[in-house]
Amino acid sequence: MAPSTPTADADSAIRTLTWHGTGLHLIDQTALPGRLVTLDASDVDTLVDAIGRLAVRGAPALGASGAYGVAIAMLQAAREGWDADRLDTEIRRIRDARPTAVNLAGGVDRVLPFVPQGVAAVIAEADAVVREDVAANRAIGAHGADWILARVERRPLRVLTHCNTGSLATAGWGTALGIIRELHARGVLEAVYADETRPLLQGSRLTAWELDQEGIPHFVQPDGAAASTILRGLVDVAVIGADRIAKNGDTANKIGSVGVALACADAGIPFVVAAPRTTFDDATPDGGAIAIEERPEAEVLEWGGIRVAPAGSRAFNPAFDVTPARLIDAIVSEDGVVEPGH
Amino acid sequence: MAPSTPTADADSAIRTLTWHGTGLHLIDQTALPGRLVTLDASDVDTLVDAIGRLAVRGAPALGASGAYGVAIAMLQAAREGWDADRLDTEIRRIRDARPTAVNLAGGVDRVLPFVPQGVAAVIAEADAVVREDVAANRAIGAHGADWILARVERRPLRVLTHCNTGSLATAGWGTALGIIRELHARGVLEAVYADETRPLLQGSRLTAWELDQEGIPHFVQPDGAAASTILRGLVDVAVIGADRIAKNGDTANKIGSVGVALACADAGIPFVVAAPRTTFDDATPDGGAIAIEERPEAEVLEWGGIRVAPAGSRAFNPAFDVTPARLIDAIVSEDGVVEPGH
Repeated sequence: MAPSTPTADADSAIRTLTWHGTGLHLIDQTALPGRLVTLDASDVDTLVDAIGRLAVRGAPALGASGAYGVAIAMLQAAREGWDADRLDTEIRRIRDARPTAVNLAGGVDRVLPFVPQGVAAVIAEADAVVREDVAANRAIGAHGADWILARVERRPLRVLTHCNTGSLATAGWGTALGIIRELHARGVLEAVYADETRPLLQGSRLTAWELDQEGIPHFVQPDGAAASTILRGLVDVAVIGADRIAKNGDTANKIGSVGVALACADAGIPFVVAAPRTTFDDATPDGGAIAIEERPEAEVLEWGGIRVAPAGSRAFNPAFDVTPARLIDAIVSEDGVVEPGH
Repeated sequence: MAPSTPTADADSAIRTLTWHGTGLHLIDQTALPGRLVTLDASDVDTLVDAIGRLAVRGAPALGASGAYGVAIAMLQAAREGWDADRLDTEIRRIRDARPTAVNLAGGVDRVLPFVPQGVAAVIAEADAVVREDVAANRAIGAHGADWILARVERRPLRVLTHCNTGSLATAGWGTALGIIRELHARGVLEAVYADETRPLLQGSRLTAWELDQEGIPHFVQPDGAAASTILRGLVDVAVIGADRIAKNGDTANKIGSVGVALACADAGIPFVVAAPRTTFDDATPDGGAIAIEERPEAEVLEWGGIRVAPAGSRAFNPAFDVTPARLIDAIVSEDGVVEPGH
């Protein structure tokens, strides 16, 4: 919480990650909304574990974690006398801790050129990643709100979102949830339908927590309800984040997103993707080239360690899906809005 | 388990309800898959409570419960000296215990003309409801399998289903799951993708349990995964049940069904509804006229009594959605197949 730390958004009480001099303080997102717990990631094992079990998650927050992660590895290398090969291996473990979000590898890659200059230079560059992410989020909120208000007539607006894309998922403010905050700040938001986002409930645990903190009216709903809520005319626009946007506009995001997009297309309401430029991956031509992480079956088959399916059952647990560009009405970044489906 | 009880399907080990002379033995579906518990519903309060908390559920099983429920009310009236008005009131409580499935009211209404002849006549008619449901399920299985095998080329087949439509949801065998059993019996089934069906997990708790009992390979998946599993080409056909089918073919079924239908339409694979004639409600012109039950918010916001969303959050918990006829490729009943979307 040092004043020099740039991870705080001045308008947001929520700091998902804070550099404390030798490592990261991370809000443990697995403990929310019941408990607000901060964990200290000052070694590679702890950071990789935190990323793997989604204690820290969200594409932009993973970018910042990757950037600071290189500094954590350098400091641990100095403490424990690693050679260069070992340092490379440990940095690669951070880079590969999750496959789908381009931001994690992007954050690592961005600071790598500064490694020869020493850890202070790496930290300074990681600080810049955070500053730029917060600024990008603010710009996304403004561009997205402008586009939606120009496109949708109804006031006040009812917005549907999926998973968590707020301060917890970014360095501050949020992408899709940043647009929602902006609409709320402009006094034109009626309510948010927040998909609970199985299996890990980022919607009911994290998005609802952020909305509750800000006093934004909201309804948590089962993911299966999203399509009918949209078809029944209860929603004016859907806004989601992204984990990787391919060159053609195909977008990987939390499992369940493409179902929201299909319902929006059928109902004739806009489906909006919000993400900073760091989530755009022009090296990936289209959605077919995006690796989709499959997570442990127990996330689906158990609840709090209690089995909810028969012992003999298997699970299919892809963490992400790909929404084709044709179903996306707007992709909002800090640079403005593109309309890939048009 | 008396040999005269007609609720047993000779080929199925699962009896969801059994008349025992003065009331119903019901498998308590809230205890599955962890425990196989039978509860005794021999008074109206117990039956209405069992229906309300989904200890017994599934449109055809609710029809049989409604029919036997009238006998339970008559026997209780005799024991407790109710007058005719009280008996009417108690029968109406059973009839109205849940609003969306037409079968519950249909089962009550079917036996009402036999009330003047006494309880034995009512029980005999309820037995007929069960016999006819099992026969209808068998015919649905055959018609549905024939239609699918004529329409879909791939062998073996990968089938997606939503919620539970098996022996537990019917008097025996199942509707959509009856078609799946039939495909398995014909040796052409590769695997089933069973949506877990939040919030009450009828898919992971009940469908997976029935599939496991029969040794049918299956994957439980989050409801949000259904659309992408279909769009990725992992599914050849989706088959679901119905709680009420309007005159124009619009179909109310468990929340999440219309999202499956939208994905099937986008992917170009068939979306099949399976239900006995008792689920067809020609008095309802279209889906807009179907009352959609909203269930308690706690089903979404809590898990095993533990809050998973912030204390300030509300939930939207519609139990059903309506799939428009245009998205349905086939409706399979004991009478054959109609193709409303064509």
